[in-house]
Amino acid sequence: MDYKKLVQEITKKRSFLCVGLDTDINKIPSFLKKAENPVFEFNKQIIDATAKYAVAFKLNTAFYESNGVQGWIDLEKTVNYIKTYYPELFVIADAKRGDIGNTSKMYAQAFFNSMNCDAITVAPYMGKDSVSPFLETKDKWAIILALTSNEGAFDFQTLSIQDSNNSLFETVLSKSKEWGSKENMMYVVGATKAESFKKIREIVPDHFLLVPGVGVQGGDLEQVAKYGMNTSCGLLVNSSRGIIFADNSEIFDKVAAEKAREIQQQMDALLRLSGI
Amino acid sequence: MDYKKLVQEITKKRSFLCVGLDTDINKIPSFLKKAENPVFEFNKQIIDATAKYAVAFKLNTAFYESNGVQGWIDLEKTVNYIKTYYPELFVIADAKRGDIGNTSKMYAQAFFNSMNCDAITVAPYMGKDSVSPFLETKDKWAIILALTSNEGAFDFQTLSIQDSNNSLFETVLSKSKEWGSKENMMYVVGATKAESFKKIREIVPDHFLLVPGVGVQGGDLEQVAKYGMNTSCGLLVNSSRGIIFADNSEIFDKVAAEKAREIQQQMDALLRLSGI
Repeated sequence: MDYKKLVQEITKKRSFLCVGLDTDINKIPSFLKKAENPVFEFNKQIIDATAKYAVAFKLNTAFYESNGVQGWIDLEKTVNYIKTYYPELFVIADAKRGDIGNTSKMYAQAFFNSMNCDAITVAPYMGKDSVSPFLETKDKWAIILALTSNEGAFDFQTLSIQDSNNSLFETVLSKSKEWGSKENMMYVVGATKAESFKKIREIVPDHFLLVPGVGVQGGDLEQVAKYGMNTSCGLLVNSSRGIIFADNSEIFDKVAAEKAREIQQQMDALLRLSGI
Repeated sequence: MDYKKLVQEITKKRSFLCVGLDTDINKIPSFLKKAENPVFEFNKQIIDATAKYAVAFKLNTAFYESNGVQGWIDLEKTVNYIKTYYPELFVIADAKRGDIGNTSKMYAQAFFNSMNCDAITVAPYMGKDSVSPFLETKDKWAIILALTSNEGAFDFQTLSIQDSNNSLFETVLSKSKEWGSKENMMYVVGATKAESFKKIREIVPDHFLLVPGVGVQGGDLEQVAKYGMNTSCGLLVNSSRGIIFADNSEIFDKVAAEKAREIQQQMDALLRLSGI
């Protein structure tokens, strides 16, 4: 999916919500566990219930890999289901990959060709040649970790780099933005770090930011929008547990839809506030 | 596998060779492509041919994921084959994972429980809580990226951190070594950076270093041993393409064995030089 289309979807749906399919098989409603394929069945129902309130779905690969081969089958089937029935949705493999060039190329093949994801999250530690292979396919995106939502973000990401006025994550932003454009790169910025969005927007005013951490992890949507939104929105805000595990009875999908709708309505108001 | 056993194997086999099963389906001998399961068949023959010269096998997950579900099947079957027929070998998932705590826990489950790998490579960008879940299982290891063998290593890893005498990768070493011990943590240090081993050994004298980049990537085994070896060896040196794709005729396995044996003999001499 290209930049223009993504912005159009946000404007049309009045939403910049990304639903995180962090599907932990131990947390899905017990009645679903009898299904032939519980994880995929759960995902399907969540997707059907929330698709109209969201512009993106994000699948964290860890939750699938932990189930071995069956997990990888569920992952592929879920991506395929979204792309078949909701082709207007942006699909992110939250895989946090990154390796030497010839190996990153294999990961790009895995997520962009074997699967039909639009984007993959990438760890920047190994530098340019670990990221570039993800930027070579038209309308496919690398989403680079900048400032993450967890406590460990303070171990290295916020350290100051000598002879610069920048921390490591700011250096990652300013250096990596030269490797691609706002048309094929986004950044992960945790919602728990709302005060940092201002500085981040000085470095990357035009790029989309993928923002996890709203909801269970404690981030505040209004603060994120206040400091992070640009004139094309420029935000994809992810919510996982707060939507998909809001309820675990037989009406889990309806409760998930209601939670997604609540966030979408907040987002509609925030878009209006920014004149979008 | 525990530290003591790993050192014993090195001493017994007179080798610190890790064979990298970066199995690119496009590069395997054409006669094998007719097999029911070409990648696994290739791996099996490489393992059988080289096991006696190696103490470890490393599987880079990218090469398997690029083949989708079948790739994940090949990955599981290969790990299982090694652990069934060569339980004395140390198996590394070169997966370069790392995510927020509850997610890294899922990756630990994927590689340590669903599969029976001994170790997984981990990117340090997200800090302590992204690494810790890999340190909680007895006799399982996290191998943290410190200084990698690629050109992109100079983008961030070698930047100097303000108010310290350390670069980023040195800071990663000195901070992360507090999170575990030499019994459950190793570091990735590229062979192409032999001059850096001295400083690295000042920070982590006792930990094992996993060293990729010898051979095709240009690293020099003697230099690595000279500056990186400690009194327990403390090195696992990886070779992938130089062994597994040394030949692609019907005797590829014999040529691979010969290449592995050559390296093992060099290693034997280097161990002797260090009194091991």
